[in-house]
Amino acid sequence: MEEIYDSIIIGTGAAGLSASLYAGRYTMKVFALGKEFGGETATAGIIHNYPGVPDIEGYELMKIMRKQAEALGVTIADGEVTDITIDDSGCFIVRLGEKTHQSASIIFAHGTKRRHLGIPNEKELTGRGVHYCITCDGPLYSGKTIAIVGGGDASVKGANLAAEYAEKIYLITLEKEVRAEPINYELMKKHGDKVVVIAENTVSEIVGNGMLEKVILKNEYNGSRELAVSGLFVEIGAVPDATLPQKLGVSLDECGYVATDNMMKTNIPGVFAAGDIVNHFGSFKQDITAAAMGAVAATSAYDYRKKNGDVCVLHGIPHGALALRV
Amino acid sequence: MEEIYDSIIIGTGAAGLSASLYAGRYTMKVFALGKEFGGETATAGIIHNYPGVPDIEGYELMKIMRKQAEALGVTIADGEVTDITIDDSGCFIVRLGEKTHQSASIIFAHGTKRRHLGIPNEKELTGRGVHYCITCDGPLYSGKTIAIVGGGDASVKGANLAAEYAEKIYLITLEKEVRAEPINYELMKKHGDKVVVIAENTVSEIVGNGMLEKVILKNEYNGSRELAVSGLFVEIGAVPDATLPQKLGVSLDECGYVATDNMMKTNIPGVFAAGDIVNHFGSFKQDITAAAMGAVAATSAYDYRKKNGDVCVLHGIPHGALALRV
Repeated sequence: MEEIYDSIIIGTGAAGLSASLYAGRYTMKVFALGKEFGGETATAGIIHNYPGVPDIEGYELMKIMRKQAEALGVTIADGEVTDITIDDSGCFIVRLGEKTHQSASIIFAHGTKRRHLGIPNEKELTGRGVHYCITCDGPLYSGKTIAIVGGGDASVKGANLAAEYAEKIYLITLEKEVRAEPINYELMKKHGDKVVVIAENTVSEIVGNGMLEKVILKNEYNGSRELAVSGLFVEIGAVPDATLPQKLGVSLDECGYVATDNMMKTNIPGVFAAGDIVNHFGSFKQDITAAAMGAVAATSAYDYRKKNGDVCVLHGIPHGALALRV
Repeated sequence: MEEIYDSIIIGTGAAGLSASLYAGRYTMKVFALGKEFGGETATAGIIHNYPGVPDIEGYELMKIMRKQAEALGVTIADGEVTDITIDDSGCFIVRLGEKTHQSASIIFAHGTKRRHLGIPNEKELTGRGVHYCITCDGPLYSGKTIAIVGGGDASVKGANLAAEYAEKIYLITLEKEVRAEPINYELMKKHGDKVVVIAENTVSEIVGNGMLEKVILKNEYNGSRELAVSGLFVEIGAVPDATLPQKLGVSLDECGYVATDNMMKTNIPGVFAAGDIVNHFGSFKQDITAAAMGAVAATSAYDYRKKNGDVCVLHGIPHGALALRV
């Protein structure tokens, strides 16, 4: 039996869960689903800068938001949307493998995916010494030497975290210096030569037979291009994954993010977006901005649903909590 | 002795405190001051919809944000800015009565002020039966009959709150029906005839000799234009207070709110705005959006300060934590 919703929210990070909470308060019938619960936040380690919540594990913060939304009747589940289409009546058909769900509106809140280096052996050794999340996989390298490729705030935050257990951390950046929040930069300096910045350099090749053994640098460092490390963490940012939005004809901005107005509306009626998949506040992508955009997107979806009570009908009867009321 | 800051934040509600937290993380020297600590949120009663924080008194939520910012070295105080100017070097001079402070940047986050009815005896009886904040003053009317002039979500939320202690509540709206969040509307209906909506009507005059005695309705209700009430609560929205921004030449939008771009920059270099004084998300003005805008404004102020380390000098020496570093 197919379920019909007022809104399906794709993504269960800060944006998707905040949208769920707000949509729940609007008494909409909502289904929120995400590939990995908690999104980027759940893997971010301690969140120090969420206004209203003192230092908290990202995953714990996401669990609180989940509970808030579930208390309002929102269904939240893990799941990967494999296809999305729109029928003649304007009803969205969301496919998860064999199952389909119908919804009068869609909120895309599935964020970004980690950028890869695209170098030899990267794919082969992923999970075998090569990683993309220090918070998640860093603790595997207690007492070991690791390298972080990056140079932005996430890589410095990662180095500080790794300094708690690793023996030595090489932070490899293309720039002359790392660019981090002052508070994180100061902390890194306190670790002394446990954290070594290799500037104006990068990793051009990964070497290992079944397990990472060493990396080859683009330029010499201390007279050699070889650097023996047990772990390599790639922290070179993320790119928006606009495959699903594009299936509905949603316009992207020049950087590949979903284009929206201030109310998080895309160019397609009934389709909204929030969080890291949107470039609304430029490169400033935070939990607090994602949560705000999620709340705005839910509000716009609610306004849309009120005006389109006849979208998505079951046996001739408009369906969904709001459709039944209007 | 004058103090010199990297940023002075005017307003200590959700926007100002979030800006304080972020500016503190950027290790800026920051002074945040507000006429009334906690702003609108502190008077809002229980906040049910702040993602990441389950039901909490607005005032308590503001105290948490305050602590987060203070832990980062931000100075937060009560105080009313009486004047603000800019000198030839681009340094802002903020006056609080006799005292002055200098700052390289300004974040306006002082929200809105409550709209008044502008009818006879309103001013004279304010605080003597006439009020503008049900959360603050409603409990004075335990077992009494009160009227709320409004019709939006705040008035319905107020009626629900008052239903806990008042005997009878008249909700007077110009519209045919009240417009509230469904969850609040449903709750109001549960109170039965304790909460009576008087539609397509308003209060045209207030009567009382030293204390409110009754209100005069514009149109008859139950055959009379007189309504005896012990308390009258005016909940007809709020207007931005742009007096200070205008002293610096800040442009306003067509509704009188401070005009900003997505990064919360105004037309004046070094001047930013966040929260209810900005119309960025239209009429959707929430704690979560205010906090997000505050974080964005602080980030923009930090970027500005980094590029303008020579603004605001003391005895010829650039001052403020960042100025000393760059």
